[in-house]
Amino acid sequence: MSLPVSKDQLLATRQLITPHIHQTPVVTNNTINQMAQADLFFKCECFQRTGSFKIRGATNAILSLSKEEQSKGVVTHSSGNFAQALSCAATKQGVKAWVVMPQNAPSVKKAAAQGYGGEIVECAPTLVDREKTAAMVIEKYGATLLHSYNQYPVIRGQATATMELLEEVQQLDYVVTPLGGGGLLSGTALACAHFSERTKVIGAEPLGADDAYRSFHAGKIIPQTNPQTIADGLRTSLGDLTFPLIKSLVSDIITVEEQEIVDAMKLFWSRAKIIIEPSSAVTVAAILKNKSLFAGKRVGVILSGGNVDLERLPW
Amino acid sequence: MSLPVSKDQLLATRQLITPHIHQTPVVTNNTINQMAQADLFFKCECFQRTGSFKIRGATNAILSLSKEEQSKGVVTHSSGNFAQALSCAATKQGVKAWVVMPQNAPSVKKAAAQGYGGEIVECAPTLVDREKTAAMVIEKYGATLLHSYNQYPVIRGQATATMELLEEVQQLDYVVTPLGGGGLLSGTALACAHFSERTKVIGAEPLGADDAYRSFHAGKIIPQTNPQTIADGLRTSLGDLTFPLIKSLVSDIITVEEQEIVDAMKLFWSRAKIIIEPSSAVTVAAILKNKSLFAGKRVGVILSGGNVDLERLPW
Repeated sequence: MSLPVSKDQLLATRQLITPHIHQTPVVTNNTINQMAQADLFFKCECFQRTGSFKIRGATNAILSLSKEEQSKGVVTHSSGNFAQALSCAATKQGVKAWVVMPQNAPSVKKAAAQGYGGEIVECAPTLVDREKTAAMVIEKYGATLLHSYNQYPVIRGQATATMELLEEVQQLDYVVTPLGGGGLLSGTALACAHFSERTKVIGAEPLGADDAYRSFHAGKIIPQTNPQTIADGLRTSLGDLTFPLIKSLVSDIITVEEQEIVDAMKLFWSRAKIIIEPSSAVTVAAILKNKSLFAGKRVGVILSGGNVDLERLPW
Repeated sequence: MSLPVSKDQLLATRQLITPHIHQTPVVTNNTINQMAQADLFFKCECFQRTGSFKIRGATNAILSLSKEEQSKGVVTHSSGNFAQALSCAATKQGVKAWVVMPQNAPSVKKAAAQGYGGEIVECAPTLVDREKTAAMVIEKYGATLLHSYNQYPVIRGQATATMELLEEVQQLDYVVTPLGGGGLLSGTALACAHFSERTKVIGAEPLGADDAYRSFHAGKIIPQTNPQTIADGLRTSLGDLTFPLIKSLVSDIITVEEQEIVDAMKLFWSRAKIIIEPSSAVTVAAILKNKSLFAGKRVGVILSGGNVDLERLPW
């Protein structure tokens, strides 16, 4: 497959967004290395602006718009990390951001996006209403719809996390990335394809939202229905841009159970003293569950975010 | 007062222990800076080996012993971070460590010290029994007693955290340090006295264990009785070596209430995504409580540790 994103495009993306994001640290932990019998390099996007990697894709998407498009604003539907990221990235560039959220979204999520300058537009909690509401904003203001993962500018932005990792840590055998809609995983796979061909890319997915695992093995998109997982960033389905990239560039998908996610999250908190959200912990769980695969290897791990409701911890 | 620890001694200490400890990162956080209206530089000893700065003093104390003393082992009484630190530092140097803990100490504390190779010696939960039990170990094995804060080799070791901070961040107006027995604060004050005279040193103490505040203002040691604070590392009383250093080198002591400690801890977790223990959060609480003092200043903050029981969070 000829890749839809070139090496030069990735380099240009990185140059474009670097002034607006944090270069996050890569950390190691002796205890977890011993448990995994591998050398793990954790790329800490939990320390990223707005608490997740989503600011990378959001920033690139906004900077990729024309001045005229920017002047009319952007709209997305998300109640998760992309809502905060887009609000922050847009506000920083002086661009108006509307965020469509269901009425029943937790008020803390609404407040977070508002805190970064986004304007919440409430809708009934159905897919149809969500899309109708976004269409209304587009119709009324001429805003551009930005998708949280299924657009190339977003995917290119997410790739930059792995570009930084590959520059800081050489000779990685694997990079393991959380897998929901596939934006981060697609970006990770593109970065490895262009900058470290020897590095195999693996997606880590909750068993309770394993549409990507099933799609990967079926060879066609099987949408996620009724996802059941604590990893709230990974409940989404693959998109028509992310699936082909994953199918052709990703070497495997590992699924993990809910208790494994919680255990991995707690282990990481107590040993590394770093707050990762359940969606990030899925990677750690996948590695500890597959010791024979990773034993003796150098493994990059993208810890995608650290946005957790401290009042409602899963233990 | 002529200082009991020289600049050359601190430099030698740092050289001695550096191969055995982590150089911990200094992090900043925009949101917390905005709240404090100051430039805060957090020295993250929560990422230190064994989860706290205590490994610095423990390592220096062990490396300062003669070969013969080392061959007979060391003993301490502690159920906190020093127990883990001494166990780890001793084991790493091939030195036997006995840790005297009351029978009723939480099993998680015993397991932690044992996990690092220390041997737990249980005693009845009284001061007399603790000292009798330590004396018994000394009598039987010829072990050397190491105190968790009131010995110069330990104090010199703790000073190295601030030495690293002063090297990484110039022109600090203040350094704020948690204050329990005063080992970390004494070391901090010595480091500033020798390497950054312009930097004022402030201790942060829980109101529920404010013996240092009262001693500082009375001009004599007033021992802590019945401390009531969630900051379990700060329940101890000043020692006869730490008090004179604090009295002569520390510019002020700020006390904070329990709810302020909990709020600061939660704020730091949610914003910085870094796990700090209540004893560390006392510094953040002290700064947010005294905005007029710190406004516009460059302030170093020693985050002493990150050992928290995740099953029993204070919110």
